[in-house]
Amino acid sequence: MSERREVDVVVLGAGPAGEVIAGRLAERDLEVALVENRLVAGECSYWACMPSKALLRPAQALGEARRVPGAAEAVTGELDVPAALARRDDVIHHLDDSEQLPWLEERGIILVRGHGHLAGERTVHVGDVELVARRAVVVAVGSAPMIPPVPGLAEARPWTNREATVTEVVPGSLLVLGGGPVGVELAQAFATLGAEVTLLEREGRLLEREEPFAGEQVGEGLQAAAVRVLVDAEVTSVRRGEDGRVTLALAGGETLEADEILVASGRRQTTDTLGLESIGLEAGSPPQPLEVGDDLRVAGRDWLYAIGDVNGKALLTHEGKYQARIAADVISGHEPQARIRGGLPPRVTFTEPQVAAVGHTLASAQEAGLNVRAVDVPTQATAGASFHGKDTDGTSRIVVDEDRGMIVGATFVGSDVAEWLHAATIAVVAEVSLEDLWHAVPAFPSRSEVWLKLLEGYGL
Amino acid sequence: MSERREVDVVVLGAGPAGEVIAGRLAERDLEVALVENRLVAGECSYWACMPSKALLRPAQALGEARRVPGAAEAVTGELDVPAALARRDDVIHHLDDSEQLPWLEERGIILVRGHGHLAGERTVHVGDVELVARRAVVVAVGSAPMIPPVPGLAEARPWTNREATVTEVVPGSLLVLGGGPVGVELAQAFATLGAEVTLLEREGRLLEREEPFAGEQVGEGLQAAAVRVLVDAEVTSVRRGEDGRVTLALAGGETLEADEILVASGRRQTTDTLGLESIGLEAGSPPQPLEVGDDLRVAGRDWLYAIGDVNGKALLTHEGKYQARIAADVISGHEPQARIRGGLPPRVTFTEPQVAAVGHTLASAQEAGLNVRAVDVPTQATAGASFHGKDTDGTSRIVVDEDRGMIVGATFVGSDVAEWLHAATIAVVAEVSLEDLWHAVPAFPSRSEVWLKLLEGYGL
Repeated sequence: MSERREVDVVVLGAGPAGEVIAGRLAERDLEVALVENRLVAGECSYWACMPSKALLRPAQALGEARRVPGAAEAVTGELDVPAALARRDDVIHHLDDSEQLPWLEERGIILVRGHGHLAGERTVHVGDVELVARRAVVVAVGSAPMIPPVPGLAEARPWTNREATVTEVVPGSLLVLGGGPVGVELAQAFATLGAEVTLLEREGRLLEREEPFAGEQVGEGLQAAAVRVLVDAEVTSVRRGEDGRVTLALAGGETLEADEILVASGRRQTTDTLGLESIGLEAGSPPQPLEVGDDLRVAGRDWLYAIGDVNGKALLTHEGKYQARIAADVISGHEPQARIRGGLPPRVTFTEPQVAAVGHTLASAQEAGLNVRAVDVPTQATAGASFHGKDTDGTSRIVVDEDRGMIVGATFVGSDVAEWLHAATIAVVAEVSLEDLWHAVPAFPSRSEVWLKLLEGYGL
Repeated sequence: MSERREVDVVVLGAGPAGEVIAGRLAERDLEVALVENRLVAGECSYWACMPSKALLRPAQALGEARRVPGAAEAVTGELDVPAALARRDDVIHHLDDSEQLPWLEERGIILVRGHGHLAGERTVHVGDVELVARRAVVVAVGSAPMIPPVPGLAEARPWTNREATVTEVVPGSLLVLGGGPVGVELAQAFATLGAEVTLLEREGRLLEREEPFAGEQVGEGLQAAAVRVLVDAEVTSVRRGEDGRVTLALAGGETLEADEILVASGRRQTTDTLGLESIGLEAGSPPQPLEVGDDLRVAGRDWLYAIGDVNGKALLTHEGKYQARIAADVISGHEPQARIRGGLPPRVTFTEPQVAAVGHTLASAQEAGLNVRAVDVPTQATAGASFHGKDTDGTSRIVVDEDRGMIVGATFVGSDVAEWLHAATIAVVAEVSLEDLWHAVPAFPSRSEVWLKLLEGYGL
């Protein structure tokens, strides 16, 4: 080792979770070293959440303007693809993280560029630098796209979110493997940018962890954007020809051809690159999450924390940041509230229609043995919907725990419903009683009166 | 009396509050007579909330599309005024209430058209029909626009909300008296439709019941829409000339001329037309609200209820409907939850920027003797704001009760923030602890992460 440095905390990974914990610890006067081998701000900022939303937003803003008489007549042109891509480039800071650095410097956070791995208790190696943590090592390395073992797929050099989100070219045609949030978002984004898109989902429905109506309604939204949606689609082989085009074979015999193929089949862990063996742990094969308790510590290694995707609890940026705040509280000694709460976090799929959900679905609540009842209303069944999201479809549902008199889940499907979610998140997390919800009056004429319809539907 | 009819409940006024209570009682198998002398669905639906939002929405939808690169380039035309007015006509059902009638009929509600007034205990006269209520009479007659006693103003036949909202013509120039929610909304609506608008407010700021920054930021929004805003404006006289134009004189000596003048100076009670003397009560001079307790009953007349604007508690449609639900529960014997809660209801001003607020302002909390601290952040200080409301301004504030560890008020100013409010309404009404709010994680990248910024700003 050419250099040895001792700090209070070493954080591996400068994605959202890593940045948040580094900042929070530094603001509490702990000395922090932050290790990153790609760009500061992480996958989410450059190759996932942020660029995908930038690619989706123009069509949604235009769609809304076209639904509002008086505004619609002013929309005489078409979506401008180069302008959309240029905005995406701004959002991802042209893949340059230098704007992030002053934030680190102001807090005295030491940035160490390179791949970090454990090399013993409280010890991290980055190239020929040895970092020793007086108090804690925090693993926040995220996850990576998974390429499923379809014959020929890996060799076909498919796009993952990392290539799709930063592309400078919209392919003429695109195959998307996977009907989860990433797949449906990117399928719709590229369709609105002009690609001929086919989405293939192995299971019987899209967004399979959400309420069944969510996948159905997003499927309709995809079809409205001219995406061909195939469910129960078993891909048997993929091949990229010498002309660069991709050919995909389905179990039924059909073959599909396209300019590009995007794999959106979930994430894999990268714990095999962390040097876990140096502290007597194993990554597993395939690599498994680094398991932690609700205090984000690895059992038996009370100096080692894992936050964000790498602990496998919830692969969502906001949950990673939440875990970062909690772990920072644990490390800096703010114990009383320092435990993560709630196993079913809020999540938004930013398609048209959007899906905003928190807590249980009806099915997951029943599987958990809860005595629940679902109430459904049309998302647009309010006076406020005359003005925003006019004539769009979608269902809103609350899942009521009848024994406890509170809601344990909510799902909203519709245009521009992402910001509706936080009300439900507060209701679920704080276990607000139905009676209190009944006295929380939504303003007229806002679309939030859907709450009134839902509670009336329950019988209040 | 040519006809005498006995029912369980007589409801005077078929606005939102009257319709809701009639429907709720009828669904509980009570026989209800509903008396209306204008249109079923009331002022809000035809001459206030609904048409004003229809007039405001096109500019906001276009404004948002113009802020989104990729969408902006498609907006090459201008707002289409005839299309906006035609949509407004659809929203107000062309001032025809026949579409409302099946809803009443399905519930067996008897509609009696005409002006109803009390004629003794449990007795209402409508023309030559006598209605006798076995159980209750509910007064839900709303309120009327107030014309302030400015010399010449009444004679100048000014517009009120009733004329402005249904106009078929956009005046070339318009003076608006009053910088409350109605004044700022209609001033901005007509400016975006092409009128040259001057807004005059007697006090030193707009939206004086809201946080000071709300009025400032809405004032900036008005100016951006080319509205001239005059505060501390004392109008000394108004005159409409023979050419139909209006001349207004200010205390400072300046005179303003315009094609039309709109009075948005608050509401007056119409309790002098209710026959209160027949049951030993007085309307007062000027007419006062019909005072009720939290169970919506008039003291000493336990068969008489007043809901909505007429009781003076909160002149807001959603509060009238809320009171209607509560009063229906009281009348039908669902007592335990049947009391209105919360003196500072949610309210939204639908201008650009919007103002969405609930509970206390900092000033009102301090006046109430609470030990509070305000936390402010820019409304757009989130990653989600890269996509929606981009580059727009505004402030978000929570008012924290330090003794009780909860928020007692929240105000959001910005583009499209109306739907943010319900989260704050639940937090305030259900008295959710700051700790619970801290564990309620906003989804990334939604603009609701403003909650995270606010709570971090507080020190969590």
